[in-house]
Amino acid sequence: MAPTEPPFCIQIKPMPEGSPEFEAKRTALLERFQAKVPPEYRLPQDLLANPPNDVSSIPATCGILSAEEVEITETFDAVGLAEAIASRKYTALAVTTAFLKRSIIAHQLTCCLTQWLVDEAIEQAKQLDDYLAQHRKPVGPLHGVPISIKDHIPIAGTFSSQGSLASIVKDEKDCQMTSILRKLGAVFYCKTNQPQALMHLESDSHWGRVLNPYNIQLSAGGSTGGEAALIALRGSVLGVGTDIGGSIRGPAAFCGIYGFKATSYTLPMDGFLAQPFAAELNVLCSTGPMCTSLRDMDMFMRVLADARPYLLDPRLVPIPWTGLQTSLPVGRRLKVGIINNDGFIEPQPPVKKAMAWATGLLSDPRHANIIQIKPFTPYGAATAWSKIQRFYWPDGGSLLKSSLVALGEPIQPLTEAIWKEAELAGMLTAEAVNAFRRERDEFRLTFARSWEEQDVDVVIGPAFVGPACAHDTALYWTYTSLYNLVDFPGVVVPTPLKVQAGEEYDAGYTPLSEACADVKRLWESGDFQGAPLALQVVARKYHDSELFGALAVLKDILGLP
Amino acid sequence: MAPTEPPFCIQIKPMPEGSPEFEAKRTALLERFQAKVPPEYRLPQDLLANPPNDVSSIPATCGILSAEEVEITETFDAVGLAEAIASRKYTALAVTTAFLKRSIIAHQLTCCLTQWLVDEAIEQAKQLDDYLAQHRKPVGPLHGVPISIKDHIPIAGTFSSQGSLASIVKDEKDCQMTSILRKLGAVFYCKTNQPQALMHLESDSHWGRVLNPYNIQLSAGGSTGGEAALIALRGSVLGVGTDIGGSIRGPAAFCGIYGFKATSYTLPMDGFLAQPFAAELNVLCSTGPMCTSLRDMDMFMRVLADARPYLLDPRLVPIPWTGLQTSLPVGRRLKVGIINNDGFIEPQPPVKKAMAWATGLLSDPRHANIIQIKPFTPYGAATAWSKIQRFYWPDGGSLLKSSLVALGEPIQPLTEAIWKEAELAGMLTAEAVNAFRRERDEFRLTFARSWEEQDVDVVIGPAFVGPACAHDTALYWTYTSLYNLVDFPGVVVPTPLKVQAGEEYDAGYTPLSEACADVKRLWESGDFQGAPLALQVVARKYHDSELFGALAVLKDILGLP
Repeated sequence: MAPTEPPFCIQIKPMPEGSPEFEAKRTALLERFQAKVPPEYRLPQDLLANPPNDVSSIPATCGILSAEEVEITETFDAVGLAEAIASRKYTALAVTTAFLKRSIIAHQLTCCLTQWLVDEAIEQAKQLDDYLAQHRKPVGPLHGVPISIKDHIPIAGTFSSQGSLASIVKDEKDCQMTSILRKLGAVFYCKTNQPQALMHLESDSHWGRVLNPYNIQLSAGGSTGGEAALIALRGSVLGVGTDIGGSIRGPAAFCGIYGFKATSYTLPMDGFLAQPFAAELNVLCSTGPMCTSLRDMDMFMRVLADARPYLLDPRLVPIPWTGLQTSLPVGRRLKVGIINNDGFIEPQPPVKKAMAWATGLLSDPRHANIIQIKPFTPYGAATAWSKIQRFYWPDGGSLLKSSLVALGEPIQPLTEAIWKEAELAGMLTAEAVNAFRRERDEFRLTFARSWEEQDVDVVIGPAFVGPACAHDTALYWTYTSLYNLVDFPGVVVPTPLKVQAGEEYDAGYTPLSEACADVKRLWESGDFQGAPLALQVVARKYHDSELFGALAVLKDILGLP
Repeated sequence: MAPTEPPFCIQIKPMPEGSPEFEAKRTALLERFQAKVPPEYRLPQDLLANPPNDVSSIPATCGILSAEEVEITETFDAVGLAEAIASRKYTALAVTTAFLKRSIIAHQLTCCLTQWLVDEAIEQAKQLDDYLAQHRKPVGPLHGVPISIKDHIPIAGTFSSQGSLASIVKDEKDCQMTSILRKLGAVFYCKTNQPQALMHLESDSHWGRVLNPYNIQLSAGGSTGGEAALIALRGSVLGVGTDIGGSIRGPAAFCGIYGFKATSYTLPMDGFLAQPFAAELNVLCSTGPMCTSLRDMDMFMRVLADARPYLLDPRLVPIPWTGLQTSLPVGRRLKVGIINNDGFIEPQPPVKKAMAWATGLLSDPRHANIIQIKPFTPYGAATAWSKIQRFYWPDGGSLLKSSLVALGEPIQPLTEAIWKEAELAGMLTAEAVNAFRRERDEFRLTFARSWEEQDVDVVIGPAFVGPACAHDTALYWTYTSLYNLVDFPGVVVPTPLKVQAGEEYDAGYTPLSEACADVKRLWESGDFQGAPLALQVVARKYHDSELFGALAVLKDILGLP
């Protein structure tokens, strides 16, 4: 059963159907959500039933937002909003209301939300306004800034789920991340959609399928796809995602925003998952910000570092954050490796176009005194992809499968695709888990040595095999998951480019692998027009500040926001 | 079969006997070692057959060393030796020869070595002298400094073993640690003894049993016990050990030297183990220096950090080393928690005496402007001990057991003791391994919160339930393994105190646990006279430099070397 009629969200491809029990629970869940939304915030029925492919301009033009609300949601990044509230240009209540309204519009266009926390957010905003009136200073650097949160990350008094309806739990308290953000003044006003099992590079869950706002025939990416669609529509300026294979960076690239996967255990994640993820025996999940400006990512990292989260979670590495202020030794040029392909899958034409654009700007002789570019080939992309698919499921996927089957939740095609390599091996023994650990570490060491031999500070390359993909086709995450396997930090940066009509593979193209040929078939069978193009910048493990120092240099050359 | 007659090393308690095949191999191994030692370096037969309990003065008085060799081996620490060689007071050859001779004397007294690298070391020393003559500057900060290495840590061209005869392999190349030390100018001249399975807090292997130089009825500790006995006898001034439950800190305490277990992945360990250790799925092994001065530990950390080992091993955390120079914010006192017992096992009387000594000095009102002391109770010592014994053996010990049985190597009592909790559970599934991970992480978080609530920078307390223990009785490692479970860095510091005759439990003693009562029984059935007394100082995970900053303060107050 699809979402209740009349349509509340645009949904262009139905989700697979589950057992009657599952569908009844799912319908009840969706109806409870929709009942909270007043009629004046609803988009016209005929728009929802017959949407254009590009819905990105609708929030500002649909008439639901006032001129001031359009200004609030379109003019500022998070740093700017914090300044505007601290200087009393806007109240926290006005800002919160604007983003509450814009987020629910964005949800109707892309199915990006799982919860809309209208009462809680209004109450939080009023308290912040009272505090500012009384104390004449903000509670913290995020005073009144609305922050959107991926569904599985706990916020006190709301629900979280781990990518299945059966896994929904009520959270009595904030996790460490949301607790810190709340103390710094953030307002929590919505939670965002994610896929089944949290393990797709798209976002298709019991809440529905997240659409790409620039072309709804395409995915917004995943697993943090709700965030990406919401931020692209400026229903949020700053969100928190997680990434164990590309789940921040993929959707950021698909939707043309910034997304940062930090090195593991540099940001607080205690409490992020109600149930332990067996994948983390091999590959740690990371977290990080998704937003619209480089300085917002930097601010996010700085305020979290300032909170000294390592005092309560000793797993966290207390490396001081210097971020955009990080400089190279005097007289040393930034060494940038250029990835045109990973030796496994040639990217689709628009991604090659974006790389050519960046390479052209970076090669400008005027920058030769500050930057040195060189070709870079990441070590072992094909074997890495094979390894990580096994590493994700030391239990063969059996624990997740049995929980889905128990409630009659349909197993989605992308779930089947991502666990199929591991399913045959079934539940491993501790001895086999230990062998995986050695295999992983040997890969990491070899990768690092190859990086060292190629002698670069950062690399710039694709974030995905193409721009955003058609629904149910995100089968190859090789350009992001490689950096989860080695645990290197990576930032997706938007470019000013978009997919144009008529972009084609070179006449001389020969596939690098079967996967490479499949990626070409996917390109030729889809319509990607209007999809934004983004690139990925990666640095060595724990060199997160150095990555931002490099981004400060690249920002000027590439003209980044 | 014991070592070949006539005795080559003092051995006061025979090792259990293995199969004829094993004993034949073992004898051949010992004979090959002994054949390298010229007669003029051999101690008198009657001394070896009828040794005093305290053998610590024998190296200087036995007549094998020249006066200059006594001076070289007794007057300097590693920093001092490096200065003396760089300033041409001594040649590298003279220093190396002195330590080669003293190490083989130490071995005959305590069975501390596994290999004596006489030809290789002389050759290395000559090359270093040539280099200095030619270039008029040392190759690096360790130019000519002899460094002893625990047997399992690879040095190119020598053998290593993982705590069993069957695991002996020839190493074609240096591991990362020895490669760095070699480049910095270190001379490798011996490898040191360790126990079966590397998992005893004593050092009793196919090479024999390491004796405590201050009282040979006692153990030198383990698993890095060969290092500790060798350094206590000044057959080395600087060695490298490993620690997954106390294996650096226990022997350092037993033998009255310094030992530092760094936070995991702050020092290079790539290649340390030929076979992966299943224990590391739950508790990472650490490494660190063992030596005779605080400044040597600091120098060791600094030169390794300067080598930027993280470029080749991305697992390593690139936290800058500030060490002894690390200072607190201006005006802030050092907050020191005092551990009198861990709530599980009351330490034996001499350890309480040492804690009272330290507490007395630290309480002196003259230091009240720089230091604040407060009682500290570590969270969960009893449960931690139960957990870590299970965490060490996700495979139930089965892999090790089958390799021992295959060659007929006798399973030693302390091996049986440390795997018995896990043996019943047998080989775990990946699901159970994952549950262990969650259980471990929850313990770590709770431990950190308890530390934070008690609001201390460092804690000072026992390093073991007693001073050095009688052979085959190191059954309770609770005071060290706790900090492996939470991965906090810890330094053992020697005190000027020793065990005296007549030390007794307080009349009012009541056991805290069954283990506590057992520890009292062990005290009352042994003779510990002459054993040195040491204490342990611990800081938060990754706060290794802050630990050294605190030690710089404690050094002056306690009068540490």
